[in-house]
Amino acid sequence: MELKLPKGTRDFPPEEKIIRDKIVETLKEVFELYGFSPLETPAFERYEILASKYAGGSEILKETFKLKDQGNRELGLRYDLTVPLSRFIGMNPNMKMPFKRYQIGPVFRDGPVESARYRQFLQCDVDVVGSKSIAADAEIVELTFKAFEKLGLKVIIKVNNRKLLNDILDFCSIDKKKQESAILSIDKLEKFGLKTVKAELKRQKIDEKTINKIINTINIKGSNNQKLSKLKKLLKDSEGLKEIEQLLDNLKNLNCEVDFDVSLARGLSYYTGTVAETFLKNNSIKTSVCGGGRYDNMIGSFLGRGDFPAVGVSFGVDRIYDALLEKEKSKQKTKTQVYVIPIGTLKESMKIAQRLRKEGINADIDLMGRGISKNLKYANSMNIPYVIFIGEDELKQKKVKLKDMESGKEEMIEITQIIKKMLP
Amino acid sequence: MELKLPKGTRDFPPEEKIIRDKIVETLKEVFELYGFSPLETPAFERYEILASKYAGGSEILKETFKLKDQGNRELGLRYDLTVPLSRFIGMNPNMKMPFKRYQIGPVFRDGPVESARYRQFLQCDVDVVGSKSIAADAEIVELTFKAFEKLGLKVIIKVNNRKLLNDILDFCSIDKKKQESAILSIDKLEKFGLKTVKAELKRQKIDEKTINKIINTINIKGSNNQKLSKLKKLLKDSEGLKEIEQLLDNLKNLNCEVDFDVSLARGLSYYTGTVAETFLKNNSIKTSVCGGGRYDNMIGSFLGRGDFPAVGVSFGVDRIYDALLEKEKSKQKTKTQVYVIPIGTLKESMKIAQRLRKEGINADIDLMGRGISKNLKYANSMNIPYVIFIGEDELKQKKVKLKDMESGKEEMIEITQIIKKMLP
Repeated sequence: MELKLPKGTRDFPPEEKIIRDKIVETLKEVFELYGFSPLETPAFERYEILASKYAGGSEILKETFKLKDQGNRELGLRYDLTVPLSRFIGMNPNMKMPFKRYQIGPVFRDGPVESARYRQFLQCDVDVVGSKSIAADAEIVELTFKAFEKLGLKVIIKVNNRKLLNDILDFCSIDKKKQESAILSIDKLEKFGLKTVKAELKRQKIDEKTINKIINTINIKGSNNQKLSKLKKLLKDSEGLKEIEQLLDNLKNLNCEVDFDVSLARGLSYYTGTVAETFLKNNSIKTSVCGGGRYDNMIGSFLGRGDFPAVGVSFGVDRIYDALLEKEKSKQKTKTQVYVIPIGTLKESMKIAQRLRKEGINADIDLMGRGISKNLKYANSMNIPYVIFIGEDELKQKKVKLKDMESGKEEMIEITQIIKKMLP
Repeated sequence: MELKLPKGTRDFPPEEKIIRDKIVETLKEVFELYGFSPLETPAFERYEILASKYAGGSEILKETFKLKDQGNRELGLRYDLTVPLSRFIGMNPNMKMPFKRYQIGPVFRDGPVESARYRQFLQCDVDVVGSKSIAADAEIVELTFKAFEKLGLKVIIKVNNRKLLNDILDFCSIDKKKQESAILSIDKLEKFGLKTVKAELKRQKIDEKTINKIINTINIKGSNNQKLSKLKKLLKDSEGLKEIEQLLDNLKNLNCEVDFDVSLARGLSYYTGTVAETFLKNNSIKTSVCGGGRYDNMIGSFLGRGDFPAVGVSFGVDRIYDALLEKEKSKQKTKTQVYVIPIGTLKESMKIAQRLRKEGINADIDLMGRGISKNLKYANSMNIPYVIFIGEDELKQKKVKLKDMESGKEEMIEITQIIKKMLP
């Protein structure tokens, strides 16, 4: 038997899992501050549900892990959390709207594993289902700011509106049928530059004059307000323009500074209004760390009934993790605050460890019966900040010897003083 | 397309997921108090790893969900967290010992779904790997007490020792080869009664006199100390007896009152010393809610090398969830503390919601543009404890109207007072 992981998967040892848990806890806390509630669905779904035409199309199905149960029922590991959300809504028709839910859990894609793509990764979605109000879009963007503030990461959030892009293409006389592919090309402006976008549009049989008109319109410069007034002069009765204006107004009211980027489209074709994408400031990670938008038709189409407007974003926990590592460098190997070394006093030391734990201090104790120097080496290798020694002398004095592992300082001290020192 | 779940699986809507998250958070907190660190491994493993002879045997393999990746590699959904732990240890040979890890995650078994068995369920394991010391066994039992104390559930913890059972069977002249099956029968004493156990032992071709001798020995009554002294008279040089005496002594020192139950065996054959099982007091759930013990050979056999003594327990999150529901009855539908109803003041109300959230209060706001009575109905259906109304009058007075949804009382109040009222 060869000891290895399935291709494209990872273990998270304690020093990594501690940071990932911290990210997830922070996100949960923020989601709940904004009135969102948690949902959990199974890791696999009936294949029929995953394969539904409205649920992502054939590209993603090629990457779906298929399996069967003993009753020969066809199943698949979920490739996202949006299809399970749609199914859940469909199965709970009496649910109160809006349904403000978040879900954090693994999803699976059996795709190529180059360039840090994994076959299991953590998806972290937060969505408002049931509200058409731009206030919901604004709340999602505000929440994104709050989340990165709590994570200690500086970000730039770019926003745009898919209807606005369609209106711009109408203005440039692009046929409705050609607009989807043109938008997918425009989306590449930031990443691949003007030349690539122009070449792609040319391949779509758009003449050079029209291409220049498109580029000039989406590439306008200036403040958000300047962009708005320039576009207002060009476009008449644009619903997309009205929506983005309303969103920007809402966000200004909430002191959230965003960057109105007319070229932002976010590849996926199911967006119907607001789109948003978050990038890190001063960081080597240039790809987005959070993205989403409004998708008013998807859930309704999936269920074949009802009106389920929705808006939400997905946080890239893996990239956030990389960014936090880059910032902090050192990895915490354990959350233990103090390591107890008994010197011939195991029973009494266990009672002292118990007392520390009762006070809420994360305490560990030698379970190997090691000598002092080996124990110190162990505590040091685990980056535990404090060690206490308990020998006969210490017991007699009703004190313990506390060693600060960073400074190396030692002092005889009462347990009550240690408790005071360590509690926040 | 039929909207349903895969057989044997469940969704956890917010009102259930909130309680489950609380259980998991409480357990994590206790595990970390005791110096354990989190580990995460993928939801699936290479099938070869899962099928290893030492990893549970053929029974569990029949219930393993099999799948393949695009490279035609054979994989399986994990059926427990112990095999992944063993693989992780094998792949990290320089790991510091003891390795005190906890892992909480879904496991999968494609078995019959009668009587509340699920095909995906949450496994929650905490183990010390690398220490032979009975102090580690005692720490695990102490941690179990602490966990249920924090969960607010009263429990009885039963302990025994597998070596002691073997020594008793030696004393009753049962052949070594027959001892394993005899122990599995003895384990049924509590659940199925004396008659069943006697019948089973008879079927194993043990004569009646010997059966009576076994039953009389394992069925001894009295306090833990009385049982110890009775057994000491019967058994000479029993290592199992020495170990259980040491465990009971350790636990007494820590004021953990356990019940020494000589018939306890815990079905699984890989236990080698201490076994422990936790039952709820005053509760309709009669099956155990936590169980485990020492398994000194399993990891070493699985890896085919090294000495990896280990002791741990597994918490039954699903049963704990049922027990907490039985105790608390009402389910919290959301963690939202206050619901903001704007009356023609959406922009100002969004700013007030933002302020509450900034202070750490979980606040929600109407995103549907509903009237007052519909909003109250919604807040009521979600069991949100407070509602605030914000109209022009309130804005002029720099106050809001706060309604206590339980008492129905309303008062005009400043935001700062609301913040004081709601923060813990």
